[in-house]
Amino acid sequence: MPVTIGVLKETVRGENRVAIVPEVASRLAALGAKVLLERGAGAAARFPDAQYKDVAFADGADGVIAAADLLFTVQPPDAAVAARLKPGAVVAGFLSPHNQAPLVRALREHKVTSFAMELVPRISRAQSMDALSSQAAVAGYKAVLIGAAALDKFFPMLTTAAGTIRPATVLVIGAGVAGLQAIATAKRLGAVVEAYDVRSATREQVKSLGAKFVETGVTAEGTGGYARELTAEEKAKQQEVLDARIAAADCVVTTVSPAFDGSQLPPSGPAAMSTITEPGFIFSTAAAVTSTGGLRPGTWAVVMTTSMPPIASLSSACWAARSSAVSSRA
Amino acid sequence: MPVTIGVLKETVRGENRVAIVPEVASRLAALGAKVLLERGAGAAARFPDAQYKDVAFADGADGVIAAADLLFTVQPPDAAVAARLKPGAVVAGFLSPHNQAPLVRALREHKVTSFAMELVPRISRAQSMDALSSQAAVAGYKAVLIGAAALDKFFPMLTTAAGTIRPATVLVIGAGVAGLQAIATAKRLGAVVEAYDVRSATREQVKSLGAKFVETGVTAEGTGGYARELTAEEKAKQQEVLDARIAAADCVVTTVSPAFDGSQLPPSGPAAMSTITEPGFIFSTAAAVTSTGGLRPGTWAVVMTTSMPPIASLSSACWAARSSAVSSRA
Repeated sequence: MPVTIGVLKETVRGENRVAIVPEVASRLAALGAKVLLERGAGAAARFPDAQYKDVAFADGADGVIAAADLLFTVQPPDAAVAARLKPGAVVAGFLSPHNQAPLVRALREHKVTSFAMELVPRISRAQSMDALSSQAAVAGYKAVLIGAAALDKFFPMLTTAAGTIRPATVLVIGAGVAGLQAIATAKRLGAVVEAYDVRSATREQVKSLGAKFVETGVTAEGTGGYARELTAEEKAKQQEVLDARIAAADCVVTTVSPAFDGSQLPPSGPAAMSTITEPGFIFSTAAAVTSTGGLRPGTWAVVMTTSMPPIASLSSACWAARSSAVSSRA
Repeated sequence: MPVTIGVLKETVRGENRVAIVPEVASRLAALGAKVLLERGAGAAARFPDAQYKDVAFADGADGVIAAADLLFTVQPPDAAVAARLKPGAVVAGFLSPHNQAPLVRALREHKVTSFAMELVPRISRAQSMDALSSQAAVAGYKAVLIGAAALDKFFPMLTTAAGTIRPATVLVIGAGVAGLQAIATAKRLGAVVEAYDVRSATREQVKSLGAKFVETGVTAEGTGGYARELTAEEKAKQQEVLDARIAAADCVVTTVSPAFDGSQLPPSGPAAMSTITEPGFIFSTAAAVTSTGGLRPGTWAVVMTTSMPPIASLSSACWAARSSAVSSRA
């Protein structure tokens, strides 16, 4: 009996991703697994059923749930789904156990083994299981595109018959995977880029991308490469320096992630919004790779101090972009 | 008596530009002119009245119209405005005379001299009067940002723990000022860029920006650096080659301008839309620097073959971006 790998169509609103792409499905099928997809599972991620070779399809979720030995998901499944899985089945996905008590209970009661992929430590040994970096890269890339599209200045320096236009100044707060991608994208577009991170180890990475590192005199190395929370005094000192840099920037991209236990790191940017007086200032928030392992809907924000037309569809655009990273169909 | 230069608040919907920016107003005032602005004239372009030094303000349009020896505009003024100008006054702006017969009649009847800035030949000698290149540069830049934000792939090649993602392929049709800016912007973002123009003289410019020139075997050099209209046979040959390149692209940016007498050059792209089968294909139209000398509202278009969420606010975003070029406040 081959193992049956089930994949459902995601049901969370705005979730366009799919837990398995055609290429991986074929690879698993070649290893002898039976891959069973709910019909249309990949449609929102631009993978029509026809692109999945070597897989079986079920018309609804029920057939997949009943047959799956392994269930791959993007978002945490409903507790009701977990309760209908075979005892001994395995679920892998962004399970967000800290926010999903009913799911965790159902998994335990029905003897289902689960792996919350976002909780896999991001260490070298586990790199092949890293489900977060790709999403963070999308976040950083997309935040800059949103900022560039919303800003009514050019990012690059341009010389036209009408004169030379100075490049925009972009401040990236947070220099993790998302922040580094944001820096790289803003640099690509020709902006003058400054970046800040409480982890001083990021200084060299920031500089290697051609950005200027903002020195606040505050460092907050935490465990596992993540930042620890700052003391009140440190925060005030950090904020003072950042306020000045924010006020000097045309576009600020923040990439602050909530901590993985669900608590929120202090978002450095918004507190300083009051210091912004320049009309047309753009504030693009790429935060956050959440404990659900993906961008939360609504975490993109472009805040403007004047009558800039509202940027609609940010959330849609964000979700649309996400699928490309997970899919990585190239 | 100093000459009075009047500037009205633009009234066309979506027009955020202003005919004079603070820096230029100050320069003209230093030369001895009296600069008279309708209050709030620069507000939509992010130039609050307070940024204009050395100018006078009128509370409404009437005071400006009655006093102006010279009227600077962005959009063509209403015929009624022209009729209330002093005899002997001068109007300069994007006047679009081919589409503004009542305005032209009113200008003539009231002995107002007018300069349609978009009709100034784009020759070296007249470069200081070039009012189109800056707008075309915005169009090309913005079209690529819109395409990049809408495309659910990355433009650059990315390497993450999830694997390497190939760069997107962008096809730019038309390699004038807008097209070259589009090429430069897409290259900056890391895309693989192909470009096409019927004017073979653009080949070297395209290549110098690092893009591949699409060879169709058709050339159509016209007068004054613009393309002439192709014959039916040439069009068919051109379309056949372009169809294949369009089908191979992830994002197509067209920058075809209507001819200056108001007739429309054949848009090469849309005809080939039927050849596109790839889900998620992005078609971003930067056309057109029209005979009104600016981007028309609604000429931005992102067309998708699948259920991509609609990109709202394109038109607003476009207009917002325009102000930066005209203003060039840096």
